[in-house]
Amino acid sequence: MVVELIAVGTEILLGNIVNTNAAYLSEKCAGLGLSCYYQSVVGDNEERLQKAIQTAVDRSDVVILSGGLGPTEDDLTKETAAKVWEKHLFLDLAVKMQIQGFFTKRGSTPTENNWKQAMVPEGALVLNNENGTAPGLIMEKDGKHMILLPGPPNELIPMFEQSAIPYLEALQPGVIFSKTVKICGIGESKAETMASDLIAAQTNPTIATYAKTGEVHFRITAFADTKENAKQLTIPVVEELKNRFGSHVYTTKEKVTLEKAVVKLLQKQKFTAASAESCTGGMVAARLINVSGVSKSLKESYITYSDKAKRKLLGVKKSSLLEFGAVSAQVAEEMARGAADFSGADVAVATTGIAGPEGGSAQKPVGLVYIACNVKGKIRVGEYHFSGNRMKIRENAVASALTLMRECILEYEKEE
Amino acid sequence: MVVELIAVGTEILLGNIVNTNAAYLSEKCAGLGLSCYYQSVVGDNEERLQKAIQTAVDRSDVVILSGGLGPTEDDLTKETAAKVWEKHLFLDLAVKMQIQGFFTKRGSTPTENNWKQAMVPEGALVLNNENGTAPGLIMEKDGKHMILLPGPPNELIPMFEQSAIPYLEALQPGVIFSKTVKICGIGESKAETMASDLIAAQTNPTIATYAKTGEVHFRITAFADTKENAKQLTIPVVEELKNRFGSHVYTTKEKVTLEKAVVKLLQKQKFTAASAESCTGGMVAARLINVSGVSKSLKESYITYSDKAKRKLLGVKKSSLLEFGAVSAQVAEEMARGAADFSGADVAVATTGIAGPEGGSAQKPVGLVYIACNVKGKIRVGEYHFSGNRMKIRENAVASALTLMRECILEYEKEE
Repeated sequence: MVVELIAVGTEILLGNIVNTNAAYLSEKCAGLGLSCYYQSVVGDNEERLQKAIQTAVDRSDVVILSGGLGPTEDDLTKETAAKVWEKHLFLDLAVKMQIQGFFTKRGSTPTENNWKQAMVPEGALVLNNENGTAPGLIMEKDGKHMILLPGPPNELIPMFEQSAIPYLEALQPGVIFSKTVKICGIGESKAETMASDLIAAQTNPTIATYAKTGEVHFRITAFADTKENAKQLTIPVVEELKNRFGSHVYTTKEKVTLEKAVVKLLQKQKFTAASAESCTGGMVAARLINVSGVSKSLKESYITYSDKAKRKLLGVKKSSLLEFGAVSAQVAEEMARGAADFSGADVAVATTGIAGPEGGSAQKPVGLVYIACNVKGKIRVGEYHFSGNRMKIRENAVASALTLMRECILEYEKEE
Repeated sequence: MVVELIAVGTEILLGNIVNTNAAYLSEKCAGLGLSCYYQSVVGDNEERLQKAIQTAVDRSDVVILSGGLGPTEDDLTKETAAKVWEKHLFLDLAVKMQIQGFFTKRGSTPTENNWKQAMVPEGALVLNNENGTAPGLIMEKDGKHMILLPGPPNELIPMFEQSAIPYLEALQPGVIFSKTVKICGIGESKAETMASDLIAAQTNPTIATYAKTGEVHFRITAFADTKENAKQLTIPVVEELKNRFGSHVYTTKEKVTLEKAVVKLLQKQKFTAASAESCTGGMVAARLINVSGVSKSLKESYITYSDKAKRKLLGVKKSSLLEFGAVSAQVAEEMARGAADFSGADVAVATTGIAGPEGGSAQKPVGLVYIACNVKGKIRVGEYHFSGNRMKIRENAVASALTLMRECILEYEKEE
């Protein structure tokens, strides 16, 4: 089945917002086994929107529209979609009551134009919106399907997952099952080469590769008559990837991030952790603190940007700073030792590097970063060379710091 | 003139990458006074790409294609665009030498398929690519224009700015001049209301609003016969916005970010700064460290996530933590005092809040954040209520912390 995406909104055409919904929906549709050949963006203009919808329903089986379901006159998606398929709109009392309830809960009252959102095309399936007033809609005609979703991602994503995915799954002849294998510590091209024979041989299941900063994710998707059979098809591929990538696989769960995997390892060992950051300037701690409930594992961390701060907070030796420079393996090691001492944490990670654009030299070019990890006194230091702008170099350093923390804790586990 | 964007690449249709080029190009085109009615994405498929290009050149004056200029067989953009306009491809020796040079500089040798990138459609203008091997191209036919750009943003952006913008400017009858007014500390809807009469009355110059986390940007764009005349048209609007938003305007320069504005203020006063962060967990310091050359102003900062760390590093009183709780105005104030004392910095900013999803209560709901700023002993504390997920709440807190730092330093300046 072929799916096509249309985002509706002049604010996207003006570049005011990035169309992240398209990436989200594309990835989900690929995971559902749907083929996507076209995505498009149209403004809040009835004529152009009507043409875009007509073109899409002519060439695709499922058309997913996002945005333009709001209460204002500019919001035309529902009216235009209904017009293309010659469906009347009528006031849906259930939807009206729901909108009323949404406002009552927030202690406010709907305005007259909110009732526009309670108008529903005949025969359409209404999708509940728990995070806003615009309901979603699914319409069918001649074996084709239109799914209308609200534009804000915090409304679109839960609605798609709760209502649209089960609908799309039921459309397919079989059942689809997806599994994600997430790896860290191996570059994208190396990871692809290591899995290239599997990728080349793929039919069912299929293997898709997603490169993230410092990580590579493989998504294995299988079709079968039942979910259990589809799942069985993915197992040998998942196992083979686990064999090939060994301890580089940090999770096979969709929702587990690298920082979550690190925090889980810390909690398993009842370890506390601290960071001492120079070039990353707090970004390693900030990522660990992305994990809700991290307070058991991370109590404090230090941003030591100046040489003086490295000495004062972490006890880095003046002689090391003079002899090797602040960006050196020696200083990274002393930072990781000092951070553990000062914080009393079991695990301490330290970063020092040249993020640029200034400050590089022939011996120490922009992109050179040293990262040290101290687990219960045993310290490992890595030298890294990253490319890109200041932000890219720092983001890569953060991913590498989390990867090193993970490796060092696993090493400790093995030795115990 | 009407412009249309086509992004080429199966990786976008699969959701592997977000199409940020579209937002970038849209914003730039709007700034150039071009109208954009359609954006689309097509995969690496000749037939579908050909149709998409044909549709676009039929309905728009300028078609900007991004991606698909690489050396592999999958890369079809140039070949397909040339086919639509029936142009032959020939080997361009200048381009060939440039590709050779690109590889020589990196100590490697081109492979046979790299010479595909030296093939140029007859009569096309070649755009130099300083960051990759794929040159850009501009083609003209019957008063229509196609601009072909490489997909990676670090190649596309410099090429667009160096080569495509001057070309697009020359196409227009007059000259366009844009100016950006960036404000902080006022919400999007309030800012729009405060400028609504200006926005409603706009013809030349036009005013576009861009909402960012904790900030609103106004872009004022004017057309005239000369650059100087266009600039003159923008001046009264810029002045009026400055009058209305007063000290909330933190810059009228396109490239100045909020963190850069704060660092500039610090440098002007020869102030050093430090952060003491709980819920933001290092993100305030990380944003200040985005600014290259911040080392003169920021020496160290503290992530004090636990109560104990707040006491140990910042001297927050045990009695305050017990009586008011860690998320309170009192504790934020003590954190900002302690951070200045411990670091010796002139300015200290402190954050403490409930980022969720757990940890909220009726008295202290998720999204409640206290931020304190200490400038030379004078401390201001703000209470904030943010909505959204954990990350969104933390990002808003960071923007508000930077805004508060800015306001407090300006207050200090005024009193001196």
